Amino acid sequence: MAYFDNAATTFPKPTCVYESMDSFYRMCSGSAGRGEHQKAQEIGWLVQDTRTQICKILHCPGKQVIFTPTATIGLNMIIQGILQSQAVNIYITPFEHNAVTRVLHHYEKTCGIKVKTLAVDDHLQYNLERIRYQFDNLKPDCLIMSHVSNTIGLITPVKEICTLGKEYGATTIIDMAQSAGLVDLDCGLETIDFAVFAGHKTLYGPTGISGFIMKQGYDLPSILFGGTGFDSANQDMPSSLPEKFEMGTLNTVGIAGLNAALKWISEVGISTLIAKEKEHRERVLNILTEFPFLHIIGNCNSAPYVGIVSCVLDGISSESAGRVFDECGIAVRTGLHCAPLAHKHLGTFPSGTIRFSTSFFTSEDDFSELEKTLVYISDNL
Amino acid sequence: MAYFDNAATTFPKPTCVYESMDSFYRMCSGSAGRGEHQKAQEIGWLVQDTRTQICKILHCPGKQVIFTPTATIGLNMIIQGILQSQAVNIYITPFEHNAVTRVLHHYEKTCGIKVKTLAVDDHLQYNLERIRYQFDNLKPDCLIMSHVSNTIGLITPVKEICTLGKEYGATTIIDMAQSAGLVDLDCGLETIDFAVFAGHKTLYGPTGISGFIMKQGYDLPSILFGGTGFDSANQDMPSSLPEKFEMGTLNTVGIAGLNAALKWISEVGISTLIAKEKEHRERVLNILTEFPFLHIIGNCNSAPYVGIVSCVLDGISSESAGRVFDECGIAVRTGLHCAPLAHKHLGTFPSGTIRFSTSFFTSEDDFSELEKTLVYISDNL
Repeated sequence: MAYFDNAATTFPKPTCVYESMDSFYRMCSGSAGRGEHQKAQEIGWLVQDTRTQICKILHCPGKQVIFTPTATIGLNMIIQGILQSQAVNIYITPFEHNAVTRVLHHYEKTCGIKVKTLAVDDHLQYNLERIRYQFDNLKPDCLIMSHVSNTIGLITPVKEICTLGKEYGATTIIDMAQSAGLVDLDCGLETIDFAVFAGHKTLYGPTGISGFIMKQGYDLPSILFGGTGFDSANQDMPSSLPEKFEMGTLNTVGIAGLNAALKWISEVGISTLIAKEKEHRERVLNILTEFPFLHIIGNCNSAPYVGIVSCVLDGISSESAGRVFDECGIAVRTGLHCAPLAHKHLGTFPSGTIRFSTSFFTSEDDFSELEKTLVYISDNL
Repeated sequence: MAYFDNAATTFPKPTCVYESMDSFYRMCSGSAGRGEHQKAQEIGWLVQDTRTQICKILHCPGKQVIFTPTATIGLNMIIQGILQSQAVNIYITPFEHNAVTRVLHHYEKTCGIKVKTLAVDDHLQYNLERIRYQFDNLKPDCLIMSHVSNTIGLITPVKEICTLGKEYGATTIIDMAQSAGLVDLDCGLETIDFAVFAGHKTLYGPTGISGFIMKQGYDLPSILFGGTGFDSANQDMPSSLPEKFEMGTLNTVGIAGLNAALKWISEVGISTLIAKEKEHRERVLNILTEFPFLHIIGNCNSAPYVGIVSCVLDGISSESAGRVFDECGIAVRTGLHCAPLAHKHLGTFPSGTIRFSTSFFTSEDDFSELEKTLVYISDNL
């Protein structure tokens, strides 16, 4: 099967990830931070080293790394924590995932928060002057921005918008689920309060381990409670980090895999990874544009992208097209990609698009299979 | 190292768990329920089969299985969901974990709920007549009970207390973190509304995958929101199960490991597993009672237990003792075990105990190492 569903989860993983998980789990057990014995301490060091690796890749040595099971749970912890401290006016990009918009929708219904969309022009450029005008009209308490759209791969100029938001005192949250380890961003900047990463996507780690970085001193209330293997007599969550937000047993085998993945990324280099993805995006675009029944969505030459391309086919729904691709051995993702707002913005709601997403490991064989399949579809339309 | 910290996480796992995780992850990727392609569908079947295996082991074919990353997050989803629907009077056992009590404490502070402790007599027997008296005085809206105490291994007669609680209309929640797959319980009973399991403890699966079963038709509000790969246009969480509570990417590699573990449990048989644990408990007790400087805590001959034993040492704090055991190559867990209420009940608060916890794989070598270490400690006291 030619795998073009890397935005769902990257596959394959670097071999070191498989090896590291397997050898960790056969040789080592115990819960990190849950006992003095040697195995528990060794795991503690592995966890600490993984936090260090995250800070290295995100350029934020001074910031706190919190592990969460998924990016979705990390986003819930941050957004719900902030909304419970009375943030009212929230700005988002038009491309946010349901991990953001469903949380906001709940608070719109129950607490009357206001959710506004940052201004983007017809060429998918964020218009800073128009955004400043928006902020002048309604002061932003909080900005939530996906760094990369999971639907079309567009890169958001988060650095510039965060700088602007900080002029108005906004809390800034970057959803890096589709960008951490791929699109270089200086998360050490004072203007970035939170950045969320997903271990199993662009970081090439396993499922079950993700997390976020947070600015030192940010007073975020807890929304989830439980044991921390630390300060156990206290019935409040401890105020120390990362314990305050890491209740329950850490996914240590997941962290072992993520640790190997992060070291692999450092070795290969983010500049190599993004160059490869841009090359792969071009390959996909070149193949798709050979077929006139196929229309690429949300692609503007002037805007920056990663290796994700969305398209629609003349006369065939995305869902049916997905089935044809599957029968031909091409793994793609069709529909709304958990981002209905993005499709509303792009004019592809509610049927959605067919999404091709590449990774470092997408091969010549994959591209050639894709081309063959499109020829087959073209011949049978 | 002789591993007596199985209540933190069982180690080793059955070999099939390691093999299943490794081969799954090398051969298969994609997100369950997130695409039509063949790999995504194969994972969907694996996830479904794992739900079926859970229902088989917990004897509840009609109930819904929800996967969560940890038992702690499952307990938060259930307890917070219920408390938000205005349950006021909550009864717990004296042995609850911070995964329960810290959640309740938050609502005690913010919403004025009342938390009461179920009556237990001096011989660690739950006194149903006194519990009925308690319920008559203050009607229970909700019962939350650990099936097995993580501190002393005591088994709670949850079936009898749930039956009583249902006479008063209480919602019943069983925390099976230390019992699922080990202590047989008919979770199919009408009197059990929720039962939470931890994949990496008595179920012998990996970290990062846990969950709960819930009664059909129970109207539990969501406390976490996000993408479900289903009904994506809807900005509310879908009302269908399990999607309503399974936001974000499932830990599929964790599910692959859990699936293998559940099949291993079915093959070995719960009756064999519990018999072995009772035998191991006896072995630990027999060893410990050879040494008069050592006092076993919370052990009554008339009460039922799994293979967890707590003790204190004359003239040496649990923490210092833990370091000595570590130096001698014995992995134990000391302190409060994230269950300060249990230690208050047992009279071992705040210093806690030394906990020895066994599994199916605890070996003759482990017991012999334990005995040797105690002789060494005895000689050097």
